[in-house]
Amino acid sequence: MKIIKGSVTAPQDFLAAGVNCGIKKNKPDLALIISKIPALAAGIFTKNAVKAAPVIISEKHLKSGRAQAIIVNSGNANCLTGKKGIDDAMETAKAVAGSMWISPSDVLVASTGVIGKPLDAGKIKAAVSKLISQLSVAGELSAAKAIMTTDLCPKRIAVAVSIGGQTVKIGGIAKGSGMICPNMATMLCFLTTDADIELKALRSSLRDSVEDSFNAITVDGDMSTNDTVFILANCLAGNPRIKYGTKDYKIFCDALGYVTTYLAKEIARDGEGASKFIEIEVKGAKNKNDASKIAKEIANSNLVKTAMAGEDPNIGRIAAAAGAAGVKFEESKLDISVSGIKIVSGGNVTYQKRPKVKRLLKKGEIKISIDLHSGKASAKVWTCDLTERYIKINARYN
Amino acid sequence: MKIIKGSVTAPQDFLAAGVNCGIKKNKPDLALIISKIPALAAGIFTKNAVKAAPVIISEKHLKSGRAQAIIVNSGNANCLTGKKGIDDAMETAKAVAGSMWISPSDVLVASTGVIGKPLDAGKIKAAVSKLISQLSVAGELSAAKAIMTTDLCPKRIAVAVSIGGQTVKIGGIAKGSGMICPNMATMLCFLTTDADIELKALRSSLRDSVEDSFNAITVDGDMSTNDTVFILANCLAGNPRIKYGTKDYKIFCDALGYVTTYLAKEIARDGEGASKFIEIEVKGAKNKNDASKIAKEIANSNLVKTAMAGEDPNIGRIAAAAGAAGVKFEESKLDISVSGIKIVSGGNVTYQKRPKVKRLLKKGEIKISIDLHSGKASAKVWTCDLTERYIKINARYN
Repeated sequence: MKIIKGSVTAPQDFLAAGVNCGIKKNKPDLALIISKIPALAAGIFTKNAVKAAPVIISEKHLKSGRAQAIIVNSGNANCLTGKKGIDDAMETAKAVAGSMWISPSDVLVASTGVIGKPLDAGKIKAAVSKLISQLSVAGELSAAKAIMTTDLCPKRIAVAVSIGGQTVKIGGIAKGSGMICPNMATMLCFLTTDADIELKALRSSLRDSVEDSFNAITVDGDMSTNDTVFILANCLAGNPRIKYGTKDYKIFCDALGYVTTYLAKEIARDGEGASKFIEIEVKGAKNKNDASKIAKEIANSNLVKTAMAGEDPNIGRIAAAAGAAGVKFEESKLDISVSGIKIVSGGNVTYQKRPKVKRLLKKGEIKISIDLHSGKASAKVWTCDLTERYIKINARYN
Repeated sequence: MKIIKGSVTAPQDFLAAGVNCGIKKNKPDLALIISKIPALAAGIFTKNAVKAAPVIISEKHLKSGRAQAIIVNSGNANCLTGKKGIDDAMETAKAVAGSMWISPSDVLVASTGVIGKPLDAGKIKAAVSKLISQLSVAGELSAAKAIMTTDLCPKRIAVAVSIGGQTVKIGGIAKGSGMICPNMATMLCFLTTDADIELKALRSSLRDSVEDSFNAITVDGDMSTNDTVFILANCLAGNPRIKYGTKDYKIFCDALGYVTTYLAKEIARDGEGASKFIEIEVKGAKNKNDASKIAKEIANSNLVKTAMAGEDPNIGRIAAAAGAAGVKFEESKLDISVSGIKIVSGGNVTYQKRPKVKRLLKKGEIKISIDLHSGKASAKVWTCDLTERYIKINARYN
């Protein structure tokens, strides 16, 4: 597998564009990604009880397992907008479908931004022909920029992998920020591939890759009203069709997992106001669920995150967060390492190591590692520190 | 029921004192509360998998249902301190017991402060005779101050209630701060009463009152390694003995609930860096657990808490947090009010009301009220906003 240039238009016969349609003042706020031919399609959506209108429409459109275009606006989430919101999302899909001579059910819709404000679908409809005229391979960067909200930089990647002697490509763009502690900040990710793959295999690989990537930066149930991941597979790579459970399937999953993990880490790194990227690994747990619960509890502790911002190796806050996850473990077996230095061993703190750890915390990347010594399961979670800038961004949003 | 002067020494024959023993530099850091005669005793402890040494010792001492003294230090949590920590907590109990001519098992111990640093029990032992010599009714204020960590003010209250024609008093002091979003900041509360009451009734009333007060400001499982609530009942009020389930029991529970709720709210109000006190009420839920889960999800959302700090009625963040609690509800029935103004009605936002709500958010107290219209259960949770000062306090602690 190798990393290649570009993102969603790196696979064969995908095009993209991003423009300003007037929802935001001057920044790009409308993106379109299309496959030249109808593609297999799968999606993963928020589990939030409050679902945005585009989520409801796209879930419906995905039932066929087929789509050809993804239209995304930023600046307005089209959520808590009642019946009008549903109509507006549908109008958006119809506008794209009409201009592309395809069925509205082949258009997927996503939105991100302010909740509870009616979406001006008219602005989107008026911009669709301009958007389509600008579709190109190079347009992927504009598309990646048009889906940003408080993100500081566009997030994009593409990889190539050999399957059955043919080069298969996977590309993706994502947005998400404010992932610091639980949080409702919307995460959007749009993936494309030219792999020839069964629908069942596509759906399953997407589910698994999201579980180990985007769900490792967002606590279960803490998803926003708009969280969405789509994948389009136009099957043009000429590889032997990938079937679920085969060796080729494994190769595809690994490559897709690489793409989603990369994008998930980019989101954590770009957390609002973040000054440090933090990886939390929990090892030696009885099962993966236990490991994941402890890792997420630590990742979501404001006290741990502020200690990291202050470059203070406050091991007590890490241990307290680990213990608060609702998972039983023996304190006398607990090991905790920070950036490679074992500072808790068998439940006892080695206080002399503090100055060394304190120096390591000055770096931009921190790794917290916990070993429970009570099993073989492990889990990784990514997050960032909690800074005064986070509060500034989130108290003065809007 | 009426509020009376003082706190833990308001009930008959309780004394208290607070001194500096040298764990902290100049501030009081050691408190003692005693009953002149052996008292019935009950306690509630943290559910954290990592338990501090004083928690382990006190759990053991409480099995008899009897105690006479509570010794508390701040500045060091005596947690993650292994076998030495247990010995130090026991040494502390023995020192008090020796000076008071009582059994060490009648002494309850609590600690709060830095985790993972050995406790210097020698300092505590050296200060015990000074502490005992200063015991008085007026000493309750020094005791309330000696248990503070990042608290801005001591938290104390006492009430009197008539039971069977006799005046029964209940007093309490508490400490806790940094309750902003999950969090591991230690909560300590020490309660005294002169009520004559059965042990079973005392235990049950304590459990229920903690559930609706301190557990309504702390998310389940997010308790610190040291969280502790003790109650001593010396039975000297002369009332007919209170039995579980009787009318007198109900009167006692209401008075105890008033005391714990008052102290819990004081903790939320004094949250680190807090500029606003927030009450979240969820009504119309199918059961209390659902109502409580949604209220806590909102209370723990950094995005909601920063919006409140920024005095921005970001209704989307409130709705998204409500939806993320893992409780199903119908969006089309959802009502949300902020400080008395209904801003979401049947799932639709009334955007025109924003300016009025924005003005109300300038006040120091905010009430967020959710009605799911799907049942009769409700729950209240108290929290505070999340400010830049919180980060400053918690990044530069130690």
